[in-house]
Amino acid sequence: MLVINKDSGIALYEQIYNQLKEQILSGQILVNTMLPSTRNLAATLQVSRNTVESAYQQLYSEGYVTSKAGSGYRVESIESNLLKEIDSVALEEYHDDEIFRSDFENKLNNPGFNFQYGKLRISDFPLRMYRKLINQILLSSDIEHISAYNDRKGELGLRIEIMKYLHESRGVRCNPEQIVICAGTLIGIGLLSQLLLQHTNSIAMEEPCYDSVRSAFMNHGFQIVPVSVEKDGINLDLLRNSSAKLAYVTPSHQFPTGAVLPINKRLGLIEWANTNDAYLIEDDYDGELRYNSRPIPSMQSLDTKGRVIYINTFSKSFAPGLRLSFLVLPMALMEEYQRGFSKYHSSAPWLEQKIMYRFMKDGHWSRHLRRICVLNKKRHDTLINTINEVMGDHVTIYGKNAGLHIVLEVNNGLTEKELIDSAEAAGVTVYPVSNYYVDPDNDTNNKVLIGFSSLSENEIVRGINLLKSAWF
Amino acid sequence: MLVINKDSGIALYEQIYNQLKEQILSGQILVNTMLPSTRNLAATLQVSRNTVESAYQQLYSEGYVTSKAGSGYRVESIESNLLKEIDSVALEEYHDDEIFRSDFENKLNNPGFNFQYGKLRISDFPLRMYRKLINQILLSSDIEHISAYNDRKGELGLRIEIMKYLHESRGVRCNPEQIVICAGTLIGIGLLSQLLLQHTNSIAMEEPCYDSVRSAFMNHGFQIVPVSVEKDGINLDLLRNSSAKLAYVTPSHQFPTGAVLPINKRLGLIEWANTNDAYLIEDDYDGELRYNSRPIPSMQSLDTKGRVIYINTFSKSFAPGLRLSFLVLPMALMEEYQRGFSKYHSSAPWLEQKIMYRFMKDGHWSRHLRRICVLNKKRHDTLINTINEVMGDHVTIYGKNAGLHIVLEVNNGLTEKELIDSAEAAGVTVYPVSNYYVDPDNDTNNKVLIGFSSLSENEIVRGINLLKSAWF
Repeated sequence: MLVINKDSGIALYEQIYNQLKEQILSGQILVNTMLPSTRNLAATLQVSRNTVESAYQQLYSEGYVTSKAGSGYRVESIESNLLKEIDSVALEEYHDDEIFRSDFENKLNNPGFNFQYGKLRISDFPLRMYRKLINQILLSSDIEHISAYNDRKGELGLRIEIMKYLHESRGVRCNPEQIVICAGTLIGIGLLSQLLLQHTNSIAMEEPCYDSVRSAFMNHGFQIVPVSVEKDGINLDLLRNSSAKLAYVTPSHQFPTGAVLPINKRLGLIEWANTNDAYLIEDDYDGELRYNSRPIPSMQSLDTKGRVIYINTFSKSFAPGLRLSFLVLPMALMEEYQRGFSKYHSSAPWLEQKIMYRFMKDGHWSRHLRRICVLNKKRHDTLINTINEVMGDHVTIYGKNAGLHIVLEVNNGLTEKELIDSAEAAGVTVYPVSNYYVDPDNDTNNKVLIGFSSLSENEIVRGINLLKSAWF
Repeated sequence: MLVINKDSGIALYEQIYNQLKEQILSGQILVNTMLPSTRNLAATLQVSRNTVESAYQQLYSEGYVTSKAGSGYRVESIESNLLKEIDSVALEEYHDDEIFRSDFENKLNNPGFNFQYGKLRISDFPLRMYRKLINQILLSSDIEHISAYNDRKGELGLRIEIMKYLHESRGVRCNPEQIVICAGTLIGIGLLSQLLLQHTNSIAMEEPCYDSVRSAFMNHGFQIVPVSVEKDGINLDLLRNSSAKLAYVTPSHQFPTGAVLPINKRLGLIEWANTNDAYLIEDDYDGELRYNSRPIPSMQSLDTKGRVIYINTFSKSFAPGLRLSFLVLPMALMEEYQRGFSKYHSSAPWLEQKIMYRFMKDGHWSRHLRRICVLNKKRHDTLINTINEVMGDHVTIYGKNAGLHIVLEVNNGLTEKELIDSAEAAGVTVYPVSNYYVDPDNDTNNKVLIGFSSLSENEIVRGINLLKSAWF
């Protein structure tokens, strides 16, 4: 028996549907029973035939009843213990409280001086121009692209601008078809993993190196071959003695040690790749940011045989929240990409790409780069000078004159953890280095990572002075 | 000998650097030569000592010279044939012409009636509200997040809104911590591939199915186990007889056939997963869009043992150009994600997420969904009515009453290719179905895919009439 409540606020057809479904599932209505005709049920319930028909249609769509033209609806046999269990699983109530926040968010809310790496200062971001360009694009007829799947390699206009910029500033030689725009470096690494797994399943990586990239390769099934980093970058002899056919390196500013790979080693690497039919992934993540000399040309610029895969990001030079990075594939890999990835869509949103395109095309990009180099050089110089001033010989600085971070070795007998904890107690957050090692035993365990891109010069001075009091 | 041209527009230090570098590489300056002191060279060239020092520093940074405190700069030995080759490789000139455009772009420029699947009508997009929200966010203090790496699962606020919406509209039970926002479905599939490769390296997929997803699984190293699709969805017996421990299905509206999986088969699938410790990936890509009944609850809503991974996208219901999709992970997989992916960053940009959050939070989302359901129902009804009217019994329509496409079987003796070619000649673009099969022999080779979301009702009527003339 069905009960209809016209004041309940629930649509009439839905009330009928819900009750019939429940009766079918509970066995109150037996299998193979014919449902009453729509005319009869409508008359009984004092509703329209359309209402009953809608309820029956819904039951039919979901497979609770079958139907044959002219013969009405017949109840299906639905046997499952699952359905009983479902009701007993209460929907877990959601409360917007602490436990749902990730560590990440809690960290961000930490007050005090945070020498976080990777966060930029919003005042460095060209917000007014960005807003102007967004509005121009939203009002243009181009906007129809937002409702479409677009070029899977990324917007052609942006790829052309990236090509010009890379050629001028990083010596990279490519045409726009070799460029694939991705939603962040790790998405690019994912794409490369898929491509390169056809060639090899192990990869030589600097020890230490950027742990996010390492975990992405591992999660894609690569075996990691750690190759230790010397004062001037990756140890070439160890690489040569490994059986790796693929290596990931950060030659402009090794992450995290800051080593710059000299020309001889760059050539050595390329010769290694040529001789072994290997690929080199050159991650040029902060190659634009050099403070006491001009940027060092990329390794890709030395590559004549198509062995170097160049990757870069707008996260350090523009804004990490945009999630924009790009790959430059050598021709041979480009062909494999065209074959194996022709069904993919771009991972980067159209609007973000279009804004970036206009920003570069209209000449704002080179001005922006000059500006952030000046701003970050000031922070860098303040950091280095203050450390030298207040900590003097008790510390060693690695990786200065470039990028957005340094590694600080502290020779006061404290371990990394003690350094970080005592800093934290003094209201200063500095970061571990040991997690960048596959084997933490390779670390001297007395170093911390210090990022300087999110603090003012004044904050840097105060933060370093607090560290001095905490550590010495 | 160095030549300085003060009117060349090239910085003086760069002129010195370039010439010295060339002379070192060509052997004109011998290995181990000491460079002249900065004082002497500055006097000779009539430039400042700082200028010379900058040039030397650059050579030093790049590894062409070494330096010891107080003893000046000494030329390094650089032996490589590579360097000679580099000069002989001319930079390929780039011309913005046809050959650099992908097939994709050429296709888009095709005039006439394009029954493209996946493209939406820009008039369906809530552009004014989007612009309003963007500007509010760009002017708010929240904007500092654009300069940071943010929550790797996506913005918490958006995840909460998605949870509420999924619960109300799709019956999905989850808390926001189970939701991971991704830059499009294929990025979500990539993440799942990485997670699930720990469990199995083969995946059962509907035959036919969405080819992009299939190629993503293949590129991640999965073996595909095709399981044929019947009138009411995937063939359960075949699945049970396979050794697969993982299956990808589209139960709400099978892609491309449009089959709706009835309740019995849904329960059967879940029992299969429970019995075999298998995971089911439920891709609910157009689950919101039903035209003659209300949306069918998701399979996830029937899952009590955490075997269903639910995935969905904003591409069909909002805008594909945004690249926003999301996964709902069962708790067990969530824990694996927390362990293996803790170093990842979100692939979805902060701004797009924030706008979507505000759009949902402020109640525009449910209004938008109602609106696009009405608009697409009109297009759908026009399409179905026109086909029935002008083609009658000569065709069979599959997958109506839902989503943004149908499959049309044409019984006039023409093959798929002939159907598409003759349509094209009449100025109408329709799409193949055979490419969705692993084995095209499983296809009847007389069907085409017709998307209706990007055309007006008027265009649909005219397009179908042109098809009728072309085909009959």
